[in-house]
Amino acid sequence: MRMIDLIIKKREGKTLSQEEFTFVANSAAKGTVPDYQLSAFLMACFLNPLSDKETALFTKAMAHSGGRLDFSATKLPKVDKHSTGGVGDGVSIALAPLVACAGVAVPMMSGRGLGHTGGTLDKLESMKNFEVRVPAKLIYRQIQKLGVCMFGQTKDLAPADKKLYSLRDATGTVESRPLIVSSILSKKYAEGVDSLLMDVKYGSGAFMQKLDDSRKLARALVNTAKLLGLKCRALITYMDQPLGRAIGNANEMLQTVLILKGDKTLAPDFYELLMREAVEMLMLSGKFKDAKKARALLEEKINNGEAAAKLREMIKWQGASPDAVDHPQQYFKPAKLKLEYKAEKAGYVAHIDAKTAGMAGVLLGAGRNTMEDTIDYGAGIWLDKKAGDAVKKGDVIATLYASDKKRLEDGIALFKQAVKISAKKPAPYKIVKEVIK
Amino acid sequence: MRMIDLIIKKREGKTLSQEEFTFVANSAAKGTVPDYQLSAFLMACFLNPLSDKETALFTKAMAHSGGRLDFSATKLPKVDKHSTGGVGDGVSIALAPLVACAGVAVPMMSGRGLGHTGGTLDKLESMKNFEVRVPAKLIYRQIQKLGVCMFGQTKDLAPADKKLYSLRDATGTVESRPLIVSSILSKKYAEGVDSLLMDVKYGSGAFMQKLDDSRKLARALVNTAKLLGLKCRALITYMDQPLGRAIGNANEMLQTVLILKGDKTLAPDFYELLMREAVEMLMLSGKFKDAKKARALLEEKINNGEAAAKLREMIKWQGASPDAVDHPQQYFKPAKLKLEYKAEKAGYVAHIDAKTAGMAGVLLGAGRNTMEDTIDYGAGIWLDKKAGDAVKKGDVIATLYASDKKRLEDGIALFKQAVKISAKKPAPYKIVKEVIK
Repeated sequence: MRMIDLIIKKREGKTLSQEEFTFVANSAAKGTVPDYQLSAFLMACFLNPLSDKETALFTKAMAHSGGRLDFSATKLPKVDKHSTGGVGDGVSIALAPLVACAGVAVPMMSGRGLGHTGGTLDKLESMKNFEVRVPAKLIYRQIQKLGVCMFGQTKDLAPADKKLYSLRDATGTVESRPLIVSSILSKKYAEGVDSLLMDVKYGSGAFMQKLDDSRKLARALVNTAKLLGLKCRALITYMDQPLGRAIGNANEMLQTVLILKGDKTLAPDFYELLMREAVEMLMLSGKFKDAKKARALLEEKINNGEAAAKLREMIKWQGASPDAVDHPQQYFKPAKLKLEYKAEKAGYVAHIDAKTAGMAGVLLGAGRNTMEDTIDYGAGIWLDKKAGDAVKKGDVIATLYASDKKRLEDGIALFKQAVKISAKKPAPYKIVKEVIK
Repeated sequence: MRMIDLIIKKREGKTLSQEEFTFVANSAAKGTVPDYQLSAFLMACFLNPLSDKETALFTKAMAHSGGRLDFSATKLPKVDKHSTGGVGDGVSIALAPLVACAGVAVPMMSGRGLGHTGGTLDKLESMKNFEVRVPAKLIYRQIQKLGVCMFGQTKDLAPADKKLYSLRDATGTVESRPLIVSSILSKKYAEGVDSLLMDVKYGSGAFMQKLDDSRKLARALVNTAKLLGLKCRALITYMDQPLGRAIGNANEMLQTVLILKGDKTLAPDFYELLMREAVEMLMLSGKFKDAKKARALLEEKINNGEAAAKLREMIKWQGASPDAVDHPQQYFKPAKLKLEYKAEKAGYVAHIDAKTAGMAGVLLGAGRNTMEDTIDYGAGIWLDKKAGDAVKKGDVIATLYASDKKRLEDGIALFKQAVKISAKKPAPYKIVKEVIK
C-alpha cells in the first residue's frame, strides 16, 4: 500500500477501507510516512469529510495504533464520561467516585486545560502528590479493588491520534467534525470501556459556540461510538456562563468535595449536572432502567457519606492526603492575594460570560496559554453571585485570587467585562439542553 | 503573516492576495515554513481551485521567489515556446533557430524527459559537449549576438516552484489545472520573455489524454499568461500517435537536422507542426500580421540554408561540433544492435499508440523511469511506416535500436502492442486541432 494512493483516493472523495485507514494510522504512529503526506491526507479528509462509517474505521485504526487497556478481569460494567470542556466544570471528580459507589467501574481518562478551558488532571494535581500517570497494571488493580481510577492518556494509547492531532493543529485541519470525533473516540475506544457518556457543551466557554454545532457533533459522536460497539449517549449542556461557583483548580476541588459531602445548595447548576450525568452513566451501564430509581440511589450515596468516602479512598490510592476530603476548607488554600469585585450598581446579575471569566482565570494564573505554562493552583475566582441573583451597589459579586498583584489587577480588569448587571431579572436557563441517544 | 492562517483561508475557498501568495512562495523557496504546512496548503488549493486571477498572483509570486532573467539589453522581441510534452516531438530544436532567423530573439528554456515523454535537453545532450547549463550572462550574450539560446532551468529560477512541485508529486496534488498553470508559467515569467507560444498536446502520449482537458488547460494558460502581461497563444495538437518518424534522442536530432536542412517530405506531420508553431511565434512577436507572409519567409529561411546555419552556430556556441549539421548521418549514430519490426499481415497501418511506443523507447534505453536513470542516446525507434501507409506482409514498419539484446527484445515486445494494422485505410488526422488566443 502506498500513502500517495490513499491521499488521491480521499482527495477524490472515495471511501477508504479498514485496511487503508489502518495503514494511515500505523504509519502516523510509527513515523514511516512523511508528515507532508499525512497533512495532505488530513486536508483531503477535511474538505471531503469522512462518513460516520469511515469515521468509525479511522477511529478503530487509531485506537489499535498502540496498546489498549484491558479490563476483562473486571466483571462490572465499565463506563467513562468525556466532556468537550468548559469553565468551572469540575463535575468529573465528583462523578467518577459517585457512579462507582453504585456498582459500576469507572476508569476515567482525562486531559489538561488549555486557554480558558479547565482540565481535570490539573484540578486533581492541585492535591499534592496526586498521581495521574498511573501504569496500566495499577489502573487494573485500582479498578478491581476500588471501582474508580482517574488518569491521564498514556504515551502508548492511540499514538496515531497524538501525531495526527499535532499535525492538524499546525495545518488548519482541526475543525472537521469527523476528525474531532475520531480523535476523541480513538482514545476512549483504546481505553476499553463498554459505555461512554459524552458531555457536549455549547456557548461562549465551549469548543462549539453554537447549539446546532454541538448537536451535530453529539450526533456524530453517538453514531460513531455505536458503530464501534460502544453504548453511548450525549448530553448537550449549557456553557455560556461558568458552571458552579468556582474557577481555578484548588477552588474547584473545594467545591467538588463540598458537594460530594452533601452540600446541595452551594452550586445548584453543578449539582444538577452531576446528578444528570451520573444517572445517564448508570442507565448506560445497564444497572438501571428507571432514571428516578437511579437518582434516588445516587442521592442516598451522597447522603450516607459513601460517595465522599470513595473519593477519599481514590485520593489515598493515588498518593494524596485524605485531608482533602476530611478538612477541605483548610486543605484547599486559595492564593495569598485576593480582591473582591463589587457591584457598581443595584439590579440583577444578568450574565457572566464563560469565556471572559475563564480567560480572567488564566490571567490570575489558574490556566495555561500554551502547554508549557505552569499553573498556580490557588489562583482563581469564586462567584459569590450567579446569574439571577439580586445585588445592591457594593455587594461582592466575585472574589479573585492570585499570587501577585499584577496578575490580580489584570484578572479583575478582564473579569469586569464578563459581568452584566441589568434592572430586570434574567430568564433562567437549562443546564442540560438535550439528550442525544 | 502566519502560514496557518493562509491554509485556513484557502481551505475555506477564500481569495488570497498578492502579498499572501508571495509569503507562501518565499517561505517555500527559503524553507522557512515546514513541508507539512505547504502540502496542506497545496491540497486546499487542489480542492478549492484558484481562480485565473489568483493563479496569476501565485505565478508571479513563484517567479519572484528567485532571480529573473533580464533581456532588456536586447531590442528584439523575445519569444519562447513551451510544450506539455509528447513522443517524438523534437520540434523545438528546429523551431528556435528557424524563428531566430526571422529577426526574433528566442531564449528557449527546456526540460528533461520522464517516462514515455521525451525532453529537449536530453536530445541536445546527445551531441557531445553540448552545454545546457548556461550562466545567465552567457545566455544574454548569445541572445544578443545570435538571437537564440537553448538552456535548462537554472537553480535560482523560480525555486518556489521547484520545492512545491516536488511536494505536489508526493502528495497527490499534481493534477490541478491552476497549479499546473502556475508551475509552467512561473518559470516562463521568470525567464523574462514578451510572448509565449504554448503547445498543449492531447492523446495517449500526452499529459492530458482528452481533447477537452487539453483545451481547458490551454485556455487557463492563455488567460493567466495575459493577466501576467505576456502575449500568449496555445495550439492544441495531436499526440495520440508519435510525431514524425523518430523516437529516441540521437534519432530525433537526426530527423530535426535533416528537416531544417530542407527535407520537407521526411516527416510531413513534424514539418507541419514546425511551420505552424514558427508562424504563431512570429505573429505573437509582432513581426508579422499575415500568416502567409510569415510562412513564406520561414520557408525561404529553410530553402536558403539560413535556418540550418543558425542551428549550426548555436551548436558551436554551446560547445558541440558543427558536424552535427554538416554530416548528420555520420554524426548521429544509432545504438549498435538493431531489430526490424515487420508487418505480420498486409493492409494499412491504422494506428501507432504514442504512449506504448514511448514506453517501448524507454525499455530500449532512450528514456528514464526515474530522474536518476541514465540515457542511452543511440537507443530508439525509427518509424519506417506511419498511420495511413499501405504495407505488404514482411514490410518493415519500424527499426528498433538498443545497446543490449535484452533491452531490444523487451522493446520490440512492447512496441508490437502499439501497432494496429487494418484492412481499411484510416482517416487522416489534423496535427493542429485548434488555436486558443
